Amino acid sequence: MRKKKILVLHGPNLNLLGRREPSVYGTLTLERINRNIVRESKRMGLDVKIHQSNSEGGLIDLIYEAIGKIDAIVINPGGYTHTSVALRDAISASLIPTVEVHLSNIYNREPFRHHSMIAPVSIGQISGFGPNSYLLGLQAACYHIQSE
Amino acid sequence: MRKKKILVLHGPNLNLLGRREPSVYGTLTLERINRNIVRESKRMGLDVKIHQSNSEGGLIDLIYEAIGKIDAIVINPGGYTHTSVALRDAISASLIPTVEVHLSNIYNREPFRHHSMIAPVSIGQISGFGPNSYLLGLQAACYHIQSE
Amino acid sequence: MRKKKILVLHGPNLNLLGRREPSVYGTLTLERINRNIVRESKRMGLDVKIHQSNSEGGLIDLIYEAIGKIDAIVINPGGYTHTSVALRDAISASLIPTVEVHLSNIYNREPFRHHSMIAPVSIGQISGFGPNSYLLGLQAACYHIQSE
Amino acid sequence: MRKKKILVLHGPNLNLLGRREPSVYGTLTLERINRNIVRESKRMGLDVKIHQSNSEGGLIDLIYEAIGKIDAIVINPGGYTHTSVALRDAISASLIPTVEVHLSNIYNREPFRHHSMIAPVSIGQISGFGPNSYLLGLQAACYHIQSE
Amino acid sequence: MRKKKILVLHGPNLNLLGRREPSVYGTLTLERINRNIVRESKRMGLDVKIHQSNSEGGLIDLIYEAIGKIDAIVINPGGYTHTSVALRDAISASLIPTVEVHLSNIYNREPFRHHSMIAPVSIGQISGFGPNSYLLGLQAACYHIQSE
Amino acid sequence: MRKKKILVLHGPNLNLLGRREPSVYGTLTLERINRNIVRESKRMGLDVKIHQSNSEGGLIDLIYEAIGKIDAIVINPGGYTHTSVALRDAISASLIPTVEVHLSNIYNREPFRHHSMIAPVSIGQISGFGPNSYLLGLQAACYHIQSE
Amino acid sequence: MRKKKILVLHGPNLNLLGRREPSVYGTLTLERINRNIVRESKRMGLDVKIHQSNSEGGLIDLIYEAIGKIDAIVINPGGYTHTSVALRDAISASLIPTVEVHLSNIYNREPFRHHSMIAPVSIGQISGFGPNSYLLGLQAACYHIQSE
Amino acid sequence: MRKKKILVLHGPNLNLLGRREPSVYGTLTLERINRNIVRESKRMGLDVKIHQSNSEGGLIDLIYEAIGKIDAIVINPGGYTHTSVALRDAISASLIPTVEVHLSNIYNREPFRHHSMIAPVSIGQISGFGPNSYLLGLQAACYHIQSE
Amino acid sequence: MRKKKILVLHGPNLNLLGRREPSVYGTLTLERINRNIVRESKRMGLDVKIHQSNSEGGLIDLIYEAIGKIDAIVINPGGYTHTSVALRDAISASLIPTVEVHLSNIYNREPFRHHSMIAPVSIGQISGFGPNSYLLGLQAACYHIQSE
Amino acid sequence: MRKKKILVLHGPNLNLLGRREPSVYGTLTLERINRNIVRESKRMGLDVKIHQSNSEGGLIDLIYEAIGKIDAIVINPGGYTHTSVALRDAISASLIPTVEVHLSNIYNREPFRHHSMIAPVSIGQISGFGPNSYLLGLQAACYHIQSE
Amino acid sequence: MRKKKILVLHGPNLNLLGRREPSVYGTLTLERINRNIVRESKRMGLDVKIHQSNSEGGLIDLIYEAIGKIDAIVINPGGYTHTSVALRDAISASLIPTVEVHLSNIYNREPFRHHSMIAPVSIGQISGFGPNSYLLGLQAACYHIQSE
Amino acid sequence: MRKKKILVLHGPNLNLLGRREPSVYGTLTLERINRNIVRESKRMGLDVKIHQSNSEGGLIDLIYEAIGKIDAIVINPGGYTHTSVALRDAISASLIPTVEVHLSNIYNREPFRHHSMIAPVSIGQISGFGPNSYLLGLQAACYHIQSE
Repeated sequence: MRKKKILVLHGPNLNLLGRREPSVYGTLTLERINRNIVRESKRMGLDVKIHQSNSEGGLIDLIYEAIGKIDAIVINPGGYTHTSVALRDAISASLIPTVEVHLSNIYNREPFRHHSMIAPVSIGQISGFGPNSYLLGLQAACYHIQSE
Repeated sequence: MRKKKILVLHGPNLNLLGRREPSVYGTLTLERINRNIVRESKRMGLDVKIHQSNSEGGLIDLIYEAIGKIDAIVINPGGYTHTSVALRDAISASLIPTVEVHLSNIYNREPFRHHSMIAPVSIGQISGFGPNSYLLGLQAACYHIQSE
Repeated sequence: MRKKKILVLHGPNLNLLGRREPSVYGTLTLERINRNIVRESKRMGLDVKIHQSNSEGGLIDLIYEAIGKIDAIVINPGGYTHTSVALRDAISASLIPTVEVHLSNIYNREPFRHHSMIAPVSIGQISGFGPNSYLLGLQAACYHIQSE
Repeated sequence: MRKKKILVLHGPNLNLLGRREPSVYGTLTLERINRNIVRESKRMGLDVKIHQSNSEGGLIDLIYEAIGKIDAIVINPGGYTHTSVALRDAISASLIPTVEVHLSNIYNREPFRHHSMIAPVSIGQISGFGPNSYLLGLQAACYHIQSE
Repeated sequence: MRKKKILVLHGPNLNLLGRREPSVYGTLTLERINRNIVRESKRMGLDVKIHQSNSEGGLIDLIYEAIGKIDAIVINPGGYTHTSVALRDAISASLIPTVEVHLSNIYNREPFRHHSMIAPVSIGQISGFGPNSYLLGLQAACYHIQSE
Repeated sequence: MRKKKILVLHGPNLNLLGRREPSVYGTLTLERINRNIVRESKRMGLDVKIHQSNSEGGLIDLIYEAIGKIDAIVINPGGYTHTSVALRDAISASLIPTVEVHLSNIYNREPFRHHSMIAPVSIGQISGFGPNSYLLGLQAACYHIQSE
Repeated sequence: MRKKKILVLHGPNLNLLGRREPSVYGTLTLERINRNIVRESKRMGLDVKIHQSNSEGGLIDLIYEAIGKIDAIVINPGGYTHTSVALRDAISASLIPTVEVHLSNIYNREPFRHHSMIAPVSIGQISGFGPNSYLLGLQAACYHIQSE
Repeated sequence: MRKKKILVLHGPNLNLLGRREPSVYGTLTLERINRNIVRESKRMGLDVKIHQSNSEGGLIDLIYEAIGKIDAIVINPGGYTHTSVALRDAISASLIPTVEVHLSNIYNREPFRHHSMIAPVSIGQISGFGPNSYLLGLQAACYHIQSE
Repeated sequence: MRKKKILVLHGPNLNLLGRREPSVYGTLTLERINRNIVRESKRMGLDVKIHQSNSEGGLIDLIYEAIGKIDAIVINPGGYTHTSVALRDAISASLIPTVEVHLSNIYNREPFRHHSMIAPVSIGQISGFGPNSYLLGLQAACYHIQSE
Repeated sequence: MRKKKILVLHGPNLNLLGRREPSVYGTLTLERINRNIVRESKRMGLDVKIHQSNSEGGLIDLIYEAIGKIDAIVINPGGYTHTSVALRDAISASLIPTVEVHLSNIYNREPFRHHSMIAPVSIGQISGFGPNSYLLGLQAACYHIQSE
Repeated sequence: MRKKKILVLHGPNLNLLGRREPSVYGTLTLERINRNIVRESKRMGLDVKIHQSNSEGGLIDLIYEAIGKIDAIVINPGGYTHTSVALRDAISASLIPTVEVHLSNIYNREPFRHHSMIAPVSIGQISGFGPNSYLLGLQAACYHIQSE
Repeated sequence: MRKKKILVLHGPNLNLLGRREPSVYGTLTLERINRNIVRESKRMGLDVKIHQSNSEGGLIDLIYEAIGKIDAIVINPGGYTHTSVALRDAISASLIPTVEVHLSNIYNREPFRHHSMIAPVSIGQISGFGPNSYLLGLQAACYHIQSE
């Protein structure tokens, strides 16, 4: 049986992670987080592919390229979480099971961050556990794939 | 007298058309729809140019390139319909007569799809007739050009 | 095969068309528009019947009389567009495919005109093309009947 | 010089005036109010015509019949004040100067009575003076006609 | 002692009952429902008069004709439930005790059906029991008349 | 055939009925109302069980105990009507047909009483007929059971 | 019998009247308007006193000084119309019958001008008739005094 | 080093899990879920204590009893998620790190379920993964304890 | 003359007072506060009875038990302040004069704490003075009893 | 040790107290209330200074004059409570501890009185105890000064 | 050519500047700021006149006195920014070009400070640069005068 | 001491400046504006770098490239002002002091332009002074750099 494949998508501003605003986003750089994601994926027997983009259209293109090749997506849509109908439509149209993750607890920040356009088309949402949100997201995607 | 030129713009996620969610968007692929658009344009004696982009900035760039070369635009702004002030400003600033079209009836879907940022700067809006929305849009653009 | 039958319904205040406020509604009288509708219907091979009423109940009665005799309705609900639950229920209960049309672009007028009670129970909506909205509506109804 | 003509329109439920709910609407019957209107009109040198209708479409029809024959309208739109886009469009399209009057002070009643669809297309509004609202409305129409 | 008299008023679109959309409104025709109403009224020792109208003004006229002749009204205001200030004012001004009934449960349908303009001027409201809503309404009116 | 069983649930503050605020809730004590409910149930050939609780969790527990033993519930959720998601979920999860009743007409009281969390998961709602609301509720439950 | 006394209060910015923005407020200066008010008052057999103040507290002081000396107030509260709870409380506490007047039709201007804090504590409101609003206000106050 | 202790709290209606509405909540009973929680806890080297309550006050009491004895809470607040200020205050005052979990994806259900009173006082929220939400919650709590 | 009796009710989470979050709620334990309440009551010549409950239904039960035995209630409804219709109805139905108190200034905390369901049925509200709010509440209740 | 100094500020319309609307504001005149304030202040060993102003700017000036001379303010901001950002800023900038008091229970009056601009910059708020609100406010200010 | 004249208006609470809340408003006193304004004006070749008032009416009076004497106004309307229709009307009616300035960034403070009544009638708005906002405002006014 | 460096960012649609809609945006082309910016920067002793992009992601990328190289940003975010959480997060995360500028007065245009996502993370905002807004922005950035 072939290994399951997961696409991890980092949205806008996540390239700066760990270098600034550690009080909000923690001190790990994106590289370190990615290394943890890779190691954890191996432990779970998953193939993982990781991308970051600051562009809404770029994220949509990455989702379309994944169709037929990827079993699940773990996405941190960053600032596009709250506004992007286009990203929502891409996830919905791709039919790829998707887990939405956030580093910070979006529900104790500014009110405009309390609403996600992405959540209703995702399997579920994980918010507030710092870089561990990605690992929990991988685990959730893994549970989902196994249950299909 | 030179032939009138129409630009048909497909917004985000329309590249997937006909392959997924046929219950919402019909079973025609974008290629088939484009062939119908071309055939119908010929019948109306119009020159037609067709583009698709998943990027908000990309759509704006396409509109600017059309200035001085195109007599009317038929646009399906997809998910950017509901959120893009920048796209609205581009259409408004370009001064090119624009017809807004939608495949699905946006008024019996989720509430956030009921409001269009684009409609107030368009000649008019056509929503709900599947791929025929494009053909009706071409006809509407054609009527408009003739009346000028 | 019998000819398809279309009912064109003009809502309140459309009897005054072409005589006043030409900057908003154009200079064609309702009679001229009706003649264009009849000519275009012939060209499409359709039978057309046209009525105007200023009364909400009157429009509902006209819809009920059409049940079993008419293949599609093209309606300009005028001021009842924004407020009439009763008209909406009549269209919905009649099960006759209905196209909603508007002369003006209702989305760049007062906010209370941006919402249509009728759109969610129509096939689709065409707004902003002046008297041509009716011709586009006929064409849309025609496409719809052919696809059934 | 011909005498100026005023149309006084009583909207829904005003036929019951003076017989019920005197604490809200006073004790004068509509007949008594109409007699006062006629007497006051004579005193001002105006021709007056008075109609009452419980039907939205009926009121619209009465306005259209007045076009070209009447110099100003004094209307108490009753319950249609707050909901009727169609009546608003009729007044606006008729181009007849219109004064909106209300017996009761609509601003210290239920919130849904605080908003008038009619006021923005009227010359002005008079609210709260009981049957005298009609007499003040006549006077206001008279002032307006003289100033044209 | 004279028999108590009840007026049952069916609002817009109820004439189509039982013939369409049985999943929402049940399979009984209005004629069958009316026969049940008559039979049940007899059982309760009541005189019953039944009317249907698609017109807002028509319903208001029917209420005014009932003044002095009718002890209670059972009304299904249909689509006018949610919008008609004029109908509300008629019921309120008539001073006839009124029971509002609905076939469907208006509270699990579209949000615009959750609010009734009529309920605050009725004795009470009965919603969701199909044609039995009328029989419960008769019973409620009967209780009310006996308690006066 | 076994007798059908109905559970009548009185929510918070109903234990005080008839002793205070008679202008709002009438002069009957809960005991008297319960006796009427029992007598009426007998007349309808129903078994009835009656409980009152001031506790949200207590009402939920009573609903769960009823599963498999009760054919329908008649509930007056009192103040929990407007706020309790938990009670709504209990009724919905129990799958027991439920009729919501209110002594007072909740639609002419404070705005926060106009919205019911319970109505969308009930068969229907009866509001405003004083203690007779319970009898009408029993009758409605009875109709519902017979139609299954 | 002593002559009735009216206080005419001009609120903020009315001192500039007739000198600027004639398209909105007309071309009459406040002095001219005041002369018309005085002449009309004489014709009605009323004593009139006129004040203008740009200060909210100043207007309140003027109302308190009028207690016991004035039979009615005609007030144009200008910009304080829409915001002043304090002015509303002063009118309400003074118990002097008050007529609210506006030069412009406040209902076809910016939305924040559509709501009056003053109207609910006034006898009634007159809006939109230019300087004639004051004369109509005097007449309305006069009718009110006579009816007491 | 002593074993870390986790309290798993099931809120209202979760006692019925697996027996009803499997399309929304899955087919596992609460007993089965609890067994999985216990097994997973052992695997993680955690002590786990599990409680269910339908009562808001009962859940608050359980939280207070946990103070000083428990290292983290995993709570599914059920219907109290959206309304309970008291439960929020209890979690906040207890200072026990808390993970909020939901079986269903609360963001694609009714709008009133989109807002959580609990999320802002939790470390984070996990929603939509069925019974696996509890296991992810345990893992998240475990990560949190280790990072302190 | 018998001594007046006051019931002091502490709502949810107040049992933890003084042990946690001193920056918000001060450093006094509930026991210390209660001792101050008892001492102050004695000084005022009042009998005082004190209860705390985390349960909404429990607080309602305590209010009902107080009927006929207690002259006034001083209540800190804690988190139920903002949501409990049932508690409001209990206070209102009990007819016992009630003073609402809060330790913290609820108006400079989260927006959901700015609205009290309890205030409209209380004599008045005291908010923001820490444990002294109870003593001021006792004094206020004392003033109220004396003035009856 | 010097005596503590309190400034009592009466806002707009309080000069009329006791002479009008006794059902809302009681029968005591401002003079009587002031005498009670002076007597109570003496009893508490406080120096008190009392001012009334109908002017928003006047109240602000009084607050600035108090800086450096006054230990606490007890203010009844009257109608400015709900609208005055300027008064709020003055209190906040003055850094003088301030207690907000209201004669009437502002939470069972019109909705626009439910929100206070002043409360978030005050120590606390006391509302609904008639003239005793001032005495309670003095006591609260006294408690506050002692605790500093 | 005569020197251009600028009026700098400081609104309520600015007299306290530099003495309190330096974290929000900086440490410069109003005197120091005024000296900088005078020096900068000289450098730009402008005549400057400076006033401060805590009174809404006072600011309006100052604007009227400036008509015909002043070429532009630089105003910091303080707390009246957000509420004063009267001040807005004064600026609009005066026809004097006006620049609105704020010391603090009003868009990252409380929500009620995010909306300015003054901005729509100003040339433009400068917010957030501390005392330099005034110097930028002078420069902006200067640019505007030169471009006329 | 090295020269301070400023990045001027022009958002979407600004490339068309001066060629279209001069009534809203003035007649200067972007090239001319840029030349003025360069000249003014030299005068202030600043190094300036200028970029324009129609793409949200493109603007974010430009901000990240500026980190560590640029002392301040002057940005006109165009249509992204009102919608872009991602751009806001980029500015905030970059920690580069940023001045937001707008050519037109965004507060007297459509309501959706009144709210800026960018303002709360900027030093301040300058709006309405045409191309001079950029020069004022440079000056503001200059003041800010000097004060650090």
